[in-house]
Amino acid sequence: MSFEENIRRVTPYTPGEQPVKKVIKLNTNECPYPPSPKVSDALKSMDTDALRLYSEVTCGTLTDALSSYYGVPKNRIFAGVGSDDVLSMCFLTFFAGKDPVLFPDITYSFYDVWASVYRIPYETIPLDDDFNIRPTDYHRRNGGVVIANPNAPTGVILSGELIEDVISHNKDSVVIVDEAYIDFGGESALPLIDRYDNLIVVRTMSKSRALAGMRIGYCFGNEKLIKYLNDVKYSVNSYTMNTPSLIAGAKAIEDDEYFKEITGRIIKTRETFSKSLRELGFTFRDSSANFVFAKPPVPFEALELFERLRERDIFVRHFKKPERISEYLRITIGTDEEMGELINALKEIMK
Amino acid sequence: MSFEENIRRVTPYTPGEQPVKKVIKLNTNECPYPPSPKVSDALKSMDTDALRLYSEVTCGTLTDALSSYYGVPKNRIFAGVGSDDVLSMCFLTFFAGKDPVLFPDITYSFYDVWASVYRIPYETIPLDDDFNIRPTDYHRRNGGVVIANPNAPTGVILSGELIEDVISHNKDSVVIVDEAYIDFGGESALPLIDRYDNLIVVRTMSKSRALAGMRIGYCFGNEKLIKYLNDVKYSVNSYTMNTPSLIAGAKAIEDDEYFKEITGRIIKTRETFSKSLRELGFTFRDSSANFVFAKPPVPFEALELFERLRERDIFVRHFKKPERISEYLRITIGTDEEMGELINALKEIMK
Repeated sequence: MSFEENIRRVTPYTPGEQPVKKVIKLNTNECPYPPSPKVSDALKSMDTDALRLYSEVTCGTLTDALSSYYGVPKNRIFAGVGSDDVLSMCFLTFFAGKDPVLFPDITYSFYDVWASVYRIPYETIPLDDDFNIRPTDYHRRNGGVVIANPNAPTGVILSGELIEDVISHNKDSVVIVDEAYIDFGGESALPLIDRYDNLIVVRTMSKSRALAGMRIGYCFGNEKLIKYLNDVKYSVNSYTMNTPSLIAGAKAIEDDEYFKEITGRIIKTRETFSKSLRELGFTFRDSSANFVFAKPPVPFEALELFERLRERDIFVRHFKKPERISEYLRITIGTDEEMGELINALKEIMK
Repeated sequence: MSFEENIRRVTPYTPGEQPVKKVIKLNTNECPYPPSPKVSDALKSMDTDALRLYSEVTCGTLTDALSSYYGVPKNRIFAGVGSDDVLSMCFLTFFAGKDPVLFPDITYSFYDVWASVYRIPYETIPLDDDFNIRPTDYHRRNGGVVIANPNAPTGVILSGELIEDVISHNKDSVVIVDEAYIDFGGESALPLIDRYDNLIVVRTMSKSRALAGMRIGYCFGNEKLIKYLNDVKYSVNSYTMNTPSLIAGAKAIEDDEYFKEITGRIIKTRETFSKSLRELGFTFRDSSANFVFAKPPVPFEALELFERLRERDIFVRHFKKPERISEYLRITIGTDEEMGELINALKEIMK
């Protein structure tokens, strides 16, 4: 016998590359614009002496700001270290049953990793050939449902009506709607938390609030679900969010004008870029996110383009698995200048 | 059937109170002094625009600094969101077996909470009547061992020789030595990681580095154990530590002079305070931590003193369970002035 027998073996999630040198970085869906100047001011004037004290166990500074902004009572809000922490806590809390949890075969690649680490049974449901989620596929007994909307890495949105169909047909399961990209398009399921006590809606400040480096995520749900979530959080780490992240998160949410400006710019760039990319022969569904997921025209191969772009210090994302997406590139929307450079590079490579 | 059946029910850890108004706060073992001025300078001059990018997935800025300071290779260091996060990951990673994990009956009250949330079998081993850990109690088949040294909330240290006895008699288990308070006294088990591949030594910046509000913890161990720990971390949340915490942690560890000054002051205050407290008739073991764990003289009761002090805005900690510590108060070492005020208040209450 050896201690190795007691070790939890897992196949971890693979994050996108974080290049050290100056490059055009369109591979991890970060925001090309800096966070709100109000975030910067608040961090620079923070009382650093007070860091000797524990941060707020309730995350109250942040959940107060979220509560006012979204008009949702505080006891229906939970905050954590990025939406990954929030989702991980949700998997641990809500999926302790025996029936398989359901999510699409092509979706955020962390879902099956959390299921594996927490030993949660799961089953993936194939998207249709156009990368659509078919709600009726989720009309069956299960231990929970997880839908990213817009979906990642496809960027495809499911309508509010169809999302509600999934939620209403699964009243005996917790349904998680992961809205990491919702600020770039589509209808949020947030208003539905008043009508469905089995719904959790997850958000992040890493994309539309330009705060990936601060690690701030949150979710909304019925007060009973939020209470269970907090019980598990207080059983894992009482003080998950540090003081700077609480301050930065509150300031980011308060600066609605800046938020609208940068998300508006990203949406505009996405539309211009999508047009140019289609002119080069790429095919893809309209994106509702801050990235596009596109297939190059014959005879070009996604992996080869990925590598050729990389040689020119332009980083995009390529997934080898599952196989039916291996011919696609996921390209984050950067600034107009960055997307222009990418288009020029593609023109040269493909000529 | 209902989704309630799939919910993980837990009894969470109860953190110490965080009073809002200005009080003498000696209840959560925070440092009475601010963090190093170098931490403050680094946070105030941080490039906030860069917060749009994800923080380092490897925590390299921080582990580089830890590696130089402790003279331990980087692949033997793991960092997380406070030592609670590090310990929680260790429980999840190393205690996936069927035999019970062993730890003392009186110790950090989060250990049994982690065991419960991750469904890890465990058994508590009683301390002796003087609150000593008896290493021979741990000479038996188990799924892991966890020892806080100095122990919490007793403040009692186990000698280096006896700690090594526990480690060397448990080569088939991972032994975690939680050294949250080691900077205030006692011999660290850190050098033993070169000789025992089953050892993990955990540290925090919340106490001796005055950074409770930044949430920074770390541990050392054989590179194989650290690799398993990272696999599980990358299966839970890739980017656990945000950019400000990596910067602050690195600066705090580099400022050794300041660290020695504040820990030296706390130790000096502890010795003076211990003398005064004994003069009032309190009995307790010498503390090797930044708190003392003391029993008031007959006819005074711990809970009553706790409440009377609270009325005077002096917060200390009282544990109702387990019963044999319900007659003790855990008092954090603050400044000389704060400890003087506490002694005066006790004199008045007890006269």
